[in-house]
Amino acid sequence: MKFLNEEYLLSLDLAKRLYHGYAQKQPIIDYHCHIVPGEIREDVRFENITKLWLGADHYKWRLMRANGVSEDLITGDASDHDKFVAFAKTLERAVGNPVFIWSHLELYRYFGYDGVLCGDTAEEVWNLCNEKLKSPEYSARGIMKMSGVELICTTDDPVDSLEHHEAIAADKTFDIEVLPAFRPDRAVDIEKEDFNAYVKKVGEAAGREIKCINCLKNALRARMDFFAEHGCRVADHGMGLFVYEPASNEAVADIFARAYRGDKVSDLEVKQYKTAMLKFFAAEYAKRGWMMQLHYGVKRENNVEAFKKLGANAGLDCIANGTASADLANFLNDCTADGALPKTVVYSLDPNEDAIIDTVIACFQESPVPGKLQHGAAWWFNDHRLGIEAHMKRLAADGLLGNFIGMLTDSRSFVSYTRHEYFRRILCNVLADFALGGDFPEDEKLLGKLAADISYNNIKEYLKK
Amino acid sequence: MKFLNEEYLLSLDLAKRLYHGYAQKQPIIDYHCHIVPGEIREDVRFENITKLWLGADHYKWRLMRANGVSEDLITGDASDHDKFVAFAKTLERAVGNPVFIWSHLELYRYFGYDGVLCGDTAEEVWNLCNEKLKSPEYSARGIMKMSGVELICTTDDPVDSLEHHEAIAADKTFDIEVLPAFRPDRAVDIEKEDFNAYVKKVGEAAGREIKCINCLKNALRARMDFFAEHGCRVADHGMGLFVYEPASNEAVADIFARAYRGDKVSDLEVKQYKTAMLKFFAAEYAKRGWMMQLHYGVKRENNVEAFKKLGANAGLDCIANGTASADLANFLNDCTADGALPKTVVYSLDPNEDAIIDTVIACFQESPVPGKLQHGAAWWFNDHRLGIEAHMKRLAADGLLGNFIGMLTDSRSFVSYTRHEYFRRILCNVLADFALGGDFPEDEKLLGKLAADISYNNIKEYLKK
Amino acid sequence: MKFLNEEYLLSLDLAKRLYHGYAQKQPIIDYHCHIVPGEIREDVRFENITKLWLGADHYKWRLMRANGVSEDLITGDASDHDKFVAFAKTLERAVGNPVFIWSHLELYRYFGYDGVLCGDTAEEVWNLCNEKLKSPEYSARGIMKMSGVELICTTDDPVDSLEHHEAIAADKTFDIEVLPAFRPDRAVDIEKEDFNAYVKKVGEAAGREIKCINCLKNALRARMDFFAEHGCRVADHGMGLFVYEPASNEAVADIFARAYRGDKVSDLEVKQYKTAMLKFFAAEYAKRGWMMQLHYGVKRENNVEAFKKLGANAGLDCIANGTASADLANFLNDCTADGALPKTVVYSLDPNEDAIIDTVIACFQESPVPGKLQHGAAWWFNDHRLGIEAHMKRLAADGLLGNFIGMLTDSRSFVSYTRHEYFRRILCNVLADFALGGDFPEDEKLLGKLAADISYNNIKEYLKK
Repeated sequence: MKFLNEEYLLSLDLAKRLYHGYAQKQPIIDYHCHIVPGEIREDVRFENITKLWLGADHYKWRLMRANGVSEDLITGDASDHDKFVAFAKTLERAVGNPVFIWSHLELYRYFGYDGVLCGDTAEEVWNLCNEKLKSPEYSARGIMKMSGVELICTTDDPVDSLEHHEAIAADKTFDIEVLPAFRPDRAVDIEKEDFNAYVKKVGEAAGREIKCINCLKNALRARMDFFAEHGCRVADHGMGLFVYEPASNEAVADIFARAYRGDKVSDLEVKQYKTAMLKFFAAEYAKRGWMMQLHYGVKRENNVEAFKKLGANAGLDCIANGTASADLANFLNDCTADGALPKTVVYSLDPNEDAIIDTVIACFQESPVPGKLQHGAAWWFNDHRLGIEAHMKRLAADGLLGNFIGMLTDSRSFVSYTRHEYFRRILCNVLADFALGGDFPEDEKLLGKLAADISYNNIKEYLKK
Repeated sequence: MKFLNEEYLLSLDLAKRLYHGYAQKQPIIDYHCHIVPGEIREDVRFENITKLWLGADHYKWRLMRANGVSEDLITGDASDHDKFVAFAKTLERAVGNPVFIWSHLELYRYFGYDGVLCGDTAEEVWNLCNEKLKSPEYSARGIMKMSGVELICTTDDPVDSLEHHEAIAADKTFDIEVLPAFRPDRAVDIEKEDFNAYVKKVGEAAGREIKCINCLKNALRARMDFFAEHGCRVADHGMGLFVYEPASNEAVADIFARAYRGDKVSDLEVKQYKTAMLKFFAAEYAKRGWMMQLHYGVKRENNVEAFKKLGANAGLDCIANGTASADLANFLNDCTADGALPKTVVYSLDPNEDAIIDTVIACFQESPVPGKLQHGAAWWFNDHRLGIEAHMKRLAADGLLGNFIGMLTDSRSFVSYTRHEYFRRILCNVLADFALGGDFPEDEKLLGKLAADISYNNIKEYLKK
Repeated sequence: MKFLNEEYLLSLDLAKRLYHGYAQKQPIIDYHCHIVPGEIREDVRFENITKLWLGADHYKWRLMRANGVSEDLITGDASDHDKFVAFAKTLERAVGNPVFIWSHLELYRYFGYDGVLCGDTAEEVWNLCNEKLKSPEYSARGIMKMSGVELICTTDDPVDSLEHHEAIAADKTFDIEVLPAFRPDRAVDIEKEDFNAYVKKVGEAAGREIKCINCLKNALRARMDFFAEHGCRVADHGMGLFVYEPASNEAVADIFARAYRGDKVSDLEVKQYKTAMLKFFAAEYAKRGWMMQLHYGVKRENNVEAFKKLGANAGLDCIANGTASADLANFLNDCTADGALPKTVVYSLDPNEDAIIDTVIACFQESPVPGKLQHGAAWWFNDHRLGIEAHMKRLAADGLLGNFIGMLTDSRSFVSYTRHEYFRRILCNVLADFALGGDFPEDEKLLGKLAADISYNNIKEYLKK
């Protein structure tokens, strides 16, 4: 029997009807990704499937390492062909891993391959894909078009010139919206070595000299305005654990001043500065109607030797456990008390925090935005059937699944849009499960509306308000 | 197809036989609820379905807020009719939420409605329910009788006069037992502003002046005796995280003395006082053969602005994570070492603590009470199919599910008894799943006994001993 | 219908084919157990089923206590017959508990009994088993042979003479390999009262006087060499929470010196010593190609009164939560940075750490050993269908399930090998579930290879390298 077909993952008839009738046809809004905008502007092409697949995909690298493959064949100097074969062999051991599924979905959708990629078929798949990649439609833009993408939000530094976004917007031959998203982590991470240098860059980008924390805030405001002029509606913050340490404005100004002149600040002061800056950003986003994403629960670059050789995003990260629900709740309360709570999307990498996040955000929901606070889609190490189902079932149990803004790729690959297909199929299974289990009426129209809303309409509306 | 029918939630034939043959017919013992006893005494009536449903139900309020409904239509001045319609529309988004199911079960059982409540049907349901509510049998007592209730335990302050319980017990026309339960949180929460005033109240209720911690303990003993005279067999303690900080009797007496004369006590001292008082209560309960419930893992009133407007129990609470298994284990060990461990029921709001609690209580089980220590039913934000199944499956895996004392409503509504039906159906599914999966013999008699015991017989016996 | 048969636990046809065609026939390598080697050497016999089953099985004791059975009938002076009956009655309440299943599998496989053990059948089973136990093939060695065991690793103290292992190896009539495993906890637990006495014993065993930490390390190296000469390839470390507190060699040497002369060391110093010693051991294991097992997340002997009467391993232990992923990650990073990371198997008793461990170990995987770092099989309170499935599904989602080294009994009973059967049936279900759910091709050969590898080939290879 063929592995992949149009009923892929859909075991229940009702799920099939929901997917084919409602979810499948929705356009894709990918509101959080790491696509490099210059690659869209240049409409890059891919020399072979290894360049497309293994050039920057730390998910695949981790699996290959877990299979005992030498680093040479992963990120090293081995030939693209040999790397591909090593990856294909690794897949034979990857039962139940999302990379197995994503890879096959990508082969099926983009390359028309419906067999099983493994050591035996590696050669056949290598040739098939590389042949197809020669065709002009397999450019970055071509792949995005075949994927049904309507809008993406990239992830951009506040100092970015956004020249690529401008150029893409100005190009009338390409009608997919490519919006910037504002990710000011480097202005928050006061403990990092390059903090001072980065603050100066923000000043340069904003055309202001930065002498104090207020100068920095004003410069960041200017950059937010600049991003808004380029269509930005989304911001994102990445952090280890979520920290909350309130301090007076004066204290925080002093912490900044000392750090900025090169003095050491304490761990507590680092947390105080971060808390204050996150509140500052939240208030600014609220004013602009932006949505704020909070990503936490990560410990990065654990394998320091490998990090020195390979740099960031090389598959060296893990879950960081231990965020207290109190810290998140107290932060959201402060924003609410200040009348400055933006639309907020919370993601933790620790799946044990699913129920916790669901019950925290429910305390701050408020009119008029339906689902003003969101528990973001199952993220990174949870971005598989197990994690996606657990996330949605818990969200349903402790909140309104119907208002969920749904899936994002979080990817820098042009062929990751199949993850939306993967998500929508799982979503339709979950909805059908509820109906057939007796938790909800077996009403195709009611369920179909939910499927379409979670796939597309909810995020469309959410980005508007 | 109709949404609700008699096979509701029961997908397996064996589950149907277990439910209809064994579980369904058992009376209800609701050993933990928040019914206001005065409302039974007065045999209150309900003007309309909004008064019955939305007057005090923070579960429903949270969902409406998550749907972007304005507070006016939730707890505010809008008409009861409009509030009901706003709730009905919210249900359309609530796939997989227990409120969807509870609401429909209540409509089905109490109002004979088997359709789907949503925006389109809100008017029809509004009229149907309000018509029925005019009938005399829809009084508080009437609803309790139609529900098959045998006994309930309310939740009462030690200073309560229990006059309503007395009056109900004296009324020969009403044969459901309504017993008080002893909830002395305010005598434990030394950090709260009203602690001193409350201690004085305890003294007044006991007819003693309180000068020291021993006076307080004696006054509380007198109140326990008074409660026992009114049939009390159950106590309950609510807390944030479970804390354990042992200290000498002298130190604790001094902490009390300082707090009682208005001095500030430290965070550590607060924990020491709480630990000591919980041990005191445990020993007193053990003497009296009462069961002690411990509810923890909550952070309350997170949204301070909303709390100022709406007060407690307004849907502003979340899970508090971070209780160490060591603290619970050390507390139970102290009670055991003192020969003063009462029957104890442990509930945490954090579902991640399911396995932890199961393994802690197993260390202290002792003859002669079967299941002397209990892992209480899935609580509050876990009180749904997902949470109930997870709780029972884990309890089964690490203990004796057969000795579980089962369900409680934890509700102040008179129509929440359907939650026992919901629980029993899930229980029968779980038992049937075990049998059909090969984990237990497919022996209807053996399984039926377990279903009946967990639904009713176990709690009946447990309250006796 | 019979409870047990050859399709036991296997609901899917594909699962049946995988089990009977691939998993079932694999020999058993039980790489972590607590069999007493002297009992193999002496080829002990069992007077009755209570001696075999209830003599040392704290799992069963806990269940009996949870059923309100008096300690007399558990570990006390009651007759073996009455203890057995009390256990049989307890099983009636143990739906969903692995002890129910293990007990029945053992009755089925070793005694040919396919009924249900309960109060009514206790007498029949008592007689049946005791009759069979008289037969010579029911000796320790006989049972191991009928179980298809190829190799076991016992758990041994570094000071052990290994005389029993030597004698067993020298006995040509017995061809099951019985290897020692190195468990040096007592040389690490510097906070324990018997630490000094134990260090002296290590010195004696190694024929060296111990004056400083380097002497201790050298003595331990000598003992590792001695163990290696006896075929040892496996080490194991048990701890409460996993701790990581780096300190200089000088500081650690000083901590040891002070503790060794009887001075008190601080909690922080205890952690520093433990961290340093664990790094020392890791480096030594790496040199020798041994695998290092890390078992943590336990709080032992919680019920102190019972512990005083019954001693260790009496069913008085619980999960210890709160290990930070950072501590494990930082430890593994230090080993990696030193070029001294051995094959490592990580087990936590807290099931909430499944995903955490999977993502931590993935940061340190390296060529050439496939799955050099392993997330050890679901352990102790997780050693049931619920825990085993959760462990494997999560491992699959965040790593390579195909490289998993599979099951161990962790038992001191000779009839626990059925747990491998239990595990393999669950494994085949999980694999079949993936295939039928659409996550993996329905390719029996590919899946069968995985089933055989996880049952046997992977651990066989892993022990070699």
